[in-house]
Amino acid sequence: MESKKRTDVNELGEFGLIDRLTATHECSHPSTLMGVGDDAAILDYGGQPIIVTTDMLLEGIHFDLMYTPLKHLGYKAVVTNLSDICAMNGLPRQITVSIALSNRFSVEAIEEIYEGIYTACRNYNVDMVGGDTNSSKKGLVISITALGSADAGKITYRKGAKPGDILCVTGDLGAAYLGLQILEREKQIWQSNPGVQPDLEDQTYLIGRQLKPEARTDMVTLFDQSGFIPTSMIDISDGLASEVKHLCKHSGTGALIEEAKVPLKDESQLMALKFKLDPITCALSGGEDYELLFTADEKDLPTIRTLPGIHIIGEMRPQEEGIKLQTVNGRFHDIVAQGWQH
Amino acid sequence: MESKKRTDVNELGEFGLIDRLTATHECSHPSTLMGVGDDAAILDYGGQPIIVTTDMLLEGIHFDLMYTPLKHLGYKAVVTNLSDICAMNGLPRQITVSIALSNRFSVEAIEEIYEGIYTACRNYNVDMVGGDTNSSKKGLVISITALGSADAGKITYRKGAKPGDILCVTGDLGAAYLGLQILEREKQIWQSNPGVQPDLEDQTYLIGRQLKPEARTDMVTLFDQSGFIPTSMIDISDGLASEVKHLCKHSGTGALIEEAKVPLKDESQLMALKFKLDPITCALSGGEDYELLFTADEKDLPTIRTLPGIHIIGEMRPQEEGIKLQTVNGRFHDIVAQGWQH
Repeated sequence: MESKKRTDVNELGEFGLIDRLTATHECSHPSTLMGVGDDAAILDYGGQPIIVTTDMLLEGIHFDLMYTPLKHLGYKAVVTNLSDICAMNGLPRQITVSIALSNRFSVEAIEEIYEGIYTACRNYNVDMVGGDTNSSKKGLVISITALGSADAGKITYRKGAKPGDILCVTGDLGAAYLGLQILEREKQIWQSNPGVQPDLEDQTYLIGRQLKPEARTDMVTLFDQSGFIPTSMIDISDGLASEVKHLCKHSGTGALIEEAKVPLKDESQLMALKFKLDPITCALSGGEDYELLFTADEKDLPTIRTLPGIHIIGEMRPQEEGIKLQTVNGRFHDIVAQGWQH
Repeated sequence: MESKKRTDVNELGEFGLIDRLTATHECSHPSTLMGVGDDAAILDYGGQPIIVTTDMLLEGIHFDLMYTPLKHLGYKAVVTNLSDICAMNGLPRQITVSIALSNRFSVEAIEEIYEGIYTACRNYNVDMVGGDTNSSKKGLVISITALGSADAGKITYRKGAKPGDILCVTGDLGAAYLGLQILEREKQIWQSNPGVQPDLEDQTYLIGRQLKPEARTDMVTLFDQSGFIPTSMIDISDGLASEVKHLCKHSGTGALIEEAKVPLKDESQLMALKFKLDPITCALSGGEDYELLFTADEKDLPTIRTLPGIHIIGEMRPQEEGIKLQTVNGRFHDIVAQGWQH
């Protein structure tokens, strides 16, 4: 089955592999406006632009059923896709859902997953329009494709930022990662001593951010209502550090982030310290915060200041200045990030 | 993780499970013209209708890497989706591809899969516009979503047939199933005696139908050029018997198929006999022939007769007459079918 030369996938890493696999394919259909290379593809079928994105979640890789309720899993599987539609400044309309599961899952268990999927559909006004249900030899796989739209002039890409643009993020960062740390800790305690009840320390916010994230369709609507269009935007679920690099790479800029301005909730700060983790590292590289990172032209600063839930964390700089973090004590560090390693 | 009541998935079967899972969800977005319940969903974003379909293929369930070359696998994974677009009388334009594979696959092996995917893209003028590459704990999973379009008045559903309509099928049937029998036989011989070279008996047609099927975009184009629109249509990859039942159920009709008119190639006939299989059963229930089953208004009979590669196999009847096969010796049998069991 295999060719003679054998390169291990780990040698390339995820982004290296994707680059290598997509290098040989060029989009040529006139209806393809944007193919691989952003949070979602953009198609033109003559009406409103179509935004398409897809994501696959695998048991044991992306989620652990030991602490993930099936209903939450279904909900989150939808949200992760909707978040990519939001990142193009669009709103989701439809999803398709393909699921494969082994016979250890009962019909009732599958129904719980779909209950989560349908709850997300209701909350976000999205229709489930198709899919596929399969047996798997082992484990659970969920593959979702989401479709959405935006007015033609409002689609926002990763490219488009320029030096001087304001760099902003919605919501707060690091909480989903810290929620995961709590769940993993309790799993390990439980595995070595199944009699012990899990101690979730009433950390409903942190755990909720991990198990039941939301997509920021509210932000897309808010932007629309205020007549604001970001110059560039990206979903930040792989971590702020790696995503600011994507914005810079696609836009041909550098960036400066001020550590003091990176939004962390008090409970995230405290929990990070409890786990002896650097809070800013959790915020920069933790991942799974389904928030939006975007840039705005300086002229939009007054508008941005009126919008709730948005944090100005820095600005875009000329490419040659690199991508830097200015720490609270005034030092400058290069931002290094690999994204979130599952 | 599980609810108290435990129903085994096998109690319901695939279609029963899908019915139960989709019963609680109603599409409500104004842009959804057709949700679950046909070969593909139909969306209206203000331009040409959008046709969307998705399919997931799993190693050990849908394919066996012992005799499936990776390049062919990639090709077939695309074709199975394109065939569903064709079944709506549309032509495909874009696909997204999500893949999960364990570390037993090298980068070169993954590239072979993509070579097959891209070959299909070139052959069918389709762009690969997005996707996802993941690790799996075990085995290979490919999930593809295809998007396409057709002029608004030309979309063909499963519903729409009426008594008196001509029932037609493209191409020939049974060959893919017999190709699979040869491959399975040689696999078993090889497993018990690895020194023996496989004897594929120069059955390149049968094996090709199994390993490298094609989607009938040519037929959709032909219909379009002749100004013909089927009254109903369905992809026949789950087997003629189960698919004629779908057409009848959605259209509220019965059907009569004449055994003598079901298209089987000589090599399929001969190979069926060699395997001591009934050729007509292979044609009716073998599955994996990516052909189109469609109905035509009587007035279109002259047009149909001029089109190459189409076989008139019977006609639609009133619902109360049931779904029957008229054998070569003039007897009538109910058509029973479960579709193709992987």
